[in-house]
Amino acid sequence: MREGYIKVHCPATVANMVCGFDILGFALEEPNDIMYVRLIDEPKVIIRNLDDYGLPTDPEKNVAGVVFLEIIQQQGNKFGFEVEIDKNIKPGSGLGSSAASAAGAAVAANHLLNNPFDTNQLIQFAMLGEKLACGVKHADNITPCIMGGVTLVRSIHPLDIVRLNAPEMYAAVVHPQIEVKTSDARQILRKEVLLKDAIRQWGNIAGLVAGLEQGNYDLISRSLEDVIVEPVRSILIPGFDEVKLKSKEAGALGGGISGSGPSLFMLCKEKSTAIQVEKAMQDVFTGLGIEYRSYVGKLSPQGVTCTEA
Amino acid sequence: MREGYIKVHCPATVANMVCGFDILGFALEEPNDIMYVRLIDEPKVIIRNLDDYGLPTDPEKNVAGVVFLEIIQQQGNKFGFEVEIDKNIKPGSGLGSSAASAAGAAVAANHLLNNPFDTNQLIQFAMLGEKLACGVKHADNITPCIMGGVTLVRSIHPLDIVRLNAPEMYAAVVHPQIEVKTSDARQILRKEVLLKDAIRQWGNIAGLVAGLEQGNYDLISRSLEDVIVEPVRSILIPGFDEVKLKSKEAGALGGGISGSGPSLFMLCKEKSTAIQVEKAMQDVFTGLGIEYRSYVGKLSPQGVTCTEA
Repeated sequence: MREGYIKVHCPATVANMVCGFDILGFALEEPNDIMYVRLIDEPKVIIRNLDDYGLPTDPEKNVAGVVFLEIIQQQGNKFGFEVEIDKNIKPGSGLGSSAASAAGAAVAANHLLNNPFDTNQLIQFAMLGEKLACGVKHADNITPCIMGGVTLVRSIHPLDIVRLNAPEMYAAVVHPQIEVKTSDARQILRKEVLLKDAIRQWGNIAGLVAGLEQGNYDLISRSLEDVIVEPVRSILIPGFDEVKLKSKEAGALGGGISGSGPSLFMLCKEKSTAIQVEKAMQDVFTGLGIEYRSYVGKLSPQGVTCTEA
Repeated sequence: MREGYIKVHCPATVANMVCGFDILGFALEEPNDIMYVRLIDEPKVIIRNLDDYGLPTDPEKNVAGVVFLEIIQQQGNKFGFEVEIDKNIKPGSGLGSSAASAAGAAVAANHLLNNPFDTNQLIQFAMLGEKLACGVKHADNITPCIMGGVTLVRSIHPLDIVRLNAPEMYAAVVHPQIEVKTSDARQILRKEVLLKDAIRQWGNIAGLVAGLEQGNYDLISRSLEDVIVEPVRSILIPGFDEVKLKSKEAGALGGGISGSGPSLFMLCKEKSTAIQVEKAMQDVFTGLGIEYRSYVGKLSPQGVTCTEA
């Protein structure tokens, strides 16, 4: 029991969703960060970490901190926030760890201030955290983290976000304990792509969005193909091709790299299939002698949620 | 009254739909080609033109003819077709004139043979006509011409087509009487595009598909942006920028080049708006001293239809 605090659930998220590089993302049921947040009178941010990741507690250097600071300043320095963060989404996993903190901070502040901000404003605030974390104000993890479900960032300037309809799906996620830096994963991409590849990619994106909206699993499955980013980035992830092959054999609709990796995800129609797919993915990394964490859960229709602590 | 003939309505179609280069297309209520087709005993194709376009009547050189010939051969040379074609979709207009003939032939043959072929097979047959017309087996006019409505060609190899849901919309179409060769329009495109432009394009495509499926006119309007093809091809069409500007002022959701041009189309929520937009487009070409034909009609939910003649 924490007097005056709210408890904030911040879901992990998967950006890109195979063919939707920089535009699509979705929220996971598992893992979740938990934050406890309360208003304080002084215009400052106090951060305590409940986990062992050793993230900075200086609010200027903390992903949640910079979001709280911006909100405090925009509202005239009349209050502050005290925050405890229990991170379960490992930093560097490619599962939207920084987005969870940034989105959690924005939604928590909004809740404690009686909801002065709309979703677009919350995303704008949270993007400051992403900028601190990786140098770019991207929104493809932030958006599903705040809105839940499957989301589209049609445009960043101006910000234009869309919640997509989607049928029930389950994700099997494996996080091999290797390091892939987002900056490296960005640098190895070519600045130019063949028009014919771009056309194939946007055919798949259109197919995926139509499949999600129409609840057509077969179309979703056929559309989960990435001819632009995956062929380059998958080189950084040992076992990638085998994970994909074995997952498909185990019944996955399809999947690929979560964000810039190294986590991999596979979408499934049924939970029982997702459990089998998780097993198949585990086996590949066990065979390679690479440690991992893995998760199975529904695509979460909910984003960040606040309850009484 | 034509004894033994069926009457075939073949709609004009708009390929690309602004951001969906090579993948999206839709059917128009107006203009339509009319074909009269009947089965004959001899394994040959007899073609008569009822219009003044002087298209070849040698079936090997006629877009409808090659489709009929292929079907006759595939079915064991046991019958033939006699065909009269009244073309209202001007060849070279960018409104799917060749697709109308090719799709009309495939659907008419299927009807007369008691529907042995499914939609995919009909598209495959009709693509032979497109190959004759422009050297490429493309399906972005054929597919909406056969299926009606708004369609997605997710992939050509293998053929994967999707009928999209769409809210009621009207198109204003103007065909300025200038010539733009499809081959020229293809040649001026760059073989490579910037990744950042491709991302913006597929954000728009995802937005357009989501907007259509959700019946969200504002999202459709915001997504009707093409940063890849239009900036290059619009150079070939005098008055393009002004047409777009004036059409938007008159209330159009958005629009652009139909196929490879020179026809331009604008989508509107209401018929009354589409009529005003048509007027605005006419004024631009009148001002430039360029003759035109223009049309207003609903996006047709129906593709090629066959009735008793």
